[in-house]
Amino acid sequence: MSEPIDLLIHPRWTVTVEPAGAALEDHAVAVRDGRIVAVVPMDEARIRFQPGKIVELPQHVLIPGLVNLHAHAAMNLMRGIADDLPLMRWLQEAIWPTESRHVSASFVRDGTLLAAAEMLRGGITTCNDMYFYPGAAAEAFAEAGMRAVVGIVVLDFPTPWASDADDYLRKGLHARDRFANHPLLSFSVAPHAPYTVSDTAFEHVRALADELETGIHVHVHETETEIRESLTTHGVRPLTRLARLGVLGESTIGVHAVHLSDMDVELLARHGCSVAHCPTSNMKLGSGIAPVTRLLAAGVNTGLGTDGAASNNRVDLFQEMRHAALLAKATTLDAAALPAHRALAMATIDGARALGMEALIGSITPGKQADLCAVDLGGLFTQPCFDPVSHLVYSAGREHVTHVWVNGEPRVNKGVPLLHIHDKELLRIASLWQTRLAN
Amino acid sequence: MSEPIDLLIHPRWTVTVEPAGAALEDHAVAVRDGRIVAVVPMDEARIRFQPGKIVELPQHVLIPGLVNLHAHAAMNLMRGIADDLPLMRWLQEAIWPTESRHVSASFVRDGTLLAAAEMLRGGITTCNDMYFYPGAAAEAFAEAGMRAVVGIVVLDFPTPWASDADDYLRKGLHARDRFANHPLLSFSVAPHAPYTVSDTAFEHVRALADELETGIHVHVHETETEIRESLTTHGVRPLTRLARLGVLGESTIGVHAVHLSDMDVELLARHGCSVAHCPTSNMKLGSGIAPVTRLLAAGVNTGLGTDGAASNNRVDLFQEMRHAALLAKATTLDAAALPAHRALAMATIDGARALGMEALIGSITPGKQADLCAVDLGGLFTQPCFDPVSHLVYSAGREHVTHVWVNGEPRVNKGVPLLHIHDKELLRIASLWQTRLAN
Repeated sequence: MSEPIDLLIHPRWTVTVEPAGAALEDHAVAVRDGRIVAVVPMDEARIRFQPGKIVELPQHVLIPGLVNLHAHAAMNLMRGIADDLPLMRWLQEAIWPTESRHVSASFVRDGTLLAAAEMLRGGITTCNDMYFYPGAAAEAFAEAGMRAVVGIVVLDFPTPWASDADDYLRKGLHARDRFANHPLLSFSVAPHAPYTVSDTAFEHVRALADELETGIHVHVHETETEIRESLTTHGVRPLTRLARLGVLGESTIGVHAVHLSDMDVELLARHGCSVAHCPTSNMKLGSGIAPVTRLLAAGVNTGLGTDGAASNNRVDLFQEMRHAALLAKATTLDAAALPAHRALAMATIDGARALGMEALIGSITPGKQADLCAVDLGGLFTQPCFDPVSHLVYSAGREHVTHVWVNGEPRVNKGVPLLHIHDKELLRIASLWQTRLAN
Repeated sequence: MSEPIDLLIHPRWTVTVEPAGAALEDHAVAVRDGRIVAVVPMDEARIRFQPGKIVELPQHVLIPGLVNLHAHAAMNLMRGIADDLPLMRWLQEAIWPTESRHVSASFVRDGTLLAAAEMLRGGITTCNDMYFYPGAAAEAFAEAGMRAVVGIVVLDFPTPWASDADDYLRKGLHARDRFANHPLLSFSVAPHAPYTVSDTAFEHVRALADELETGIHVHVHETETEIRESLTTHGVRPLTRLARLGVLGESTIGVHAVHLSDMDVELLARHGCSVAHCPTSNMKLGSGIAPVTRLLAAGVNTGLGTDGAASNNRVDLFQEMRHAALLAKATTLDAAALPAHRALAMATIDGARALGMEALIGSITPGKQADLCAVDLGGLFTQPCFDPVSHLVYSAGREHVTHVWVNGEPRVNKGVPLLHIHDKELLRIASLWQTRLAN
């Protein structure tokens, strides 16, 4: 008797990510009730399963859905609004003034919808987000059908969203309560950065994260200026300050981590923190190049993030995989540094681990949710193909993503998005905000 | 009386590249007999011209066709055949053995056809190439209808193509004679690198380039090893040796130029050499990051190259523009370093200047050949759009190229290639060589 399942996917290659390095040929992935139930040779699958639907992908590689470990999704509305400016001028002269004039619940909802559509189409199925109006962001991720960890942002200065650190937390918790039982959404606490959050607020963050058992999502050591100012104001480097305040731990994600002394790396490793490496944003803002090979050598779990569209300007994890691999080689003068398999692991299982979701997503493993992405390697730009994982990182791009599933539900099919909201409406939204922001 | 022309292109934006920074709105580009005859406001164009064909591009930016200043087009057949290896191991263990077994006229013709199809589709209209069997490469470029400067490669060791330096030159000149009057093709002399070419051969190269008034195309200062070995063998750094041999001059293109002392930069500037910056290849092979801002500050004309598909692995100048801009910012810690307009100029007019073709191509200027590329910025990944040039470099990709013209002839139309050879046949060729090379 064969076993009824919802979906059988039969790609040319299945790259499970765990175990590392595997590229199974002529295997099939069986999905039931949103979960992966088996990864077996197609011949075996034919006998064992009675699928409701079979998807044949004869020239494709199937990979786990990508995990974007750092985003400000709503910033899609500010894509390219200010380029070629250093971080502090970019924030103080362009981003913050625009935000203070325009950011609202509808801005965040609309911007996040645009980003979610962009991410899903590019194979990203999970997003670790940080922005104002987390409730509005959550609404958008829910509408797009995308998995997200929504950061309850905390700053020590007033914005249209909240007046002080406690107000940010209170409002964020209210948003969290609204989505308490959502199958795709969870929340973390997201103190913005050492230079925008006081010791007291960090202590509140720590207490709250402990109480709720959520992660902490915080920018750290993005620029040399940040470190210099911390030494002046606090007498220690930001990571040392965060360690003293109890903010570093196994559920803490330090974003950027560009400028790291050996002691900084040791601190991150000792506390079991993860790092969200955002190579494109770090380059574009002139922040520098994070020492990823040192982090990996020290055993620091390191995932990949796109950052927001205003500092990247693509919300594209294929690009981040490529940049992580290329920059590691360029800075160490070692072409073997950070091979393709490692870059793919960073964009999947390492991101999942950082979010405490490694039992749920991040690899094509029976028992995990069926968050999956198929990439067509049969076109001219990816031929010949001697190694599908090499092509994923060095040759292909998100433009070759053809199918995306979240919890076994199709979000992209043969390159066509299957969202509740149509492209035409998304473009209308983008155009509307462009007119407002340009004024 | 209105003036008859062949083609009127009416994009939303026309980025002429010269003068720098211009993004003309609602202008039109008039083309007759393969040349640009005018760039004028559309209202004026309607009155002044009687076009055989009008192409309306309401959400597109029109740019000059891109100039790929360094390629080994035939290496498309070896895309991804050996990754994550340093330059010398990559050459000695993977590339050279594969080449010695497989490279032939048909290999070069087929590989170059694949690369030309990839390049044209990505908006590249001119390729400065270097490989064995230059005659076979020229045939492929001619068949694809792509502008190319074919390098007559010279090495001091035997390959299937030729036995010694004089044999390389003799055979290359024969190929050059065959295409003497081709409207799209010209030839340069391409001594491979300081570590593969003897002093005597460099002297022959210099004499020949003088006699024929061609350019010289040579790899220089790609790795630290190359420089160290030159110091041991010749007592001087490679660029100093080339200067003494008379190889540096205004028509010399030094490829890579990653490791440069101040004196090296000064040598390149003083001799009026151009540099072909290949950021992706340099990262992928662990060679390093070329000091582009120092080159530009010294007045060294610097274009962009993809290098071959075996070391990149995309033959994609949009990627190289993005990498040039991002790496310059990351290495100088200055987000204003190498802005988007500058990266676009490197990929167009600066490449043309390096080839001595700045009067012919590289900008949208009346009198130049109509080598043009249209990029659709109306999609979700490029919205909103506050600055089309920012989007060209930081947000868009070759996947957004919709129209390409060479000498006013369409090569890509609405995203569909218009080559003599069909995709299906190109894929068959790639598959055939993959089978042979994998054995």
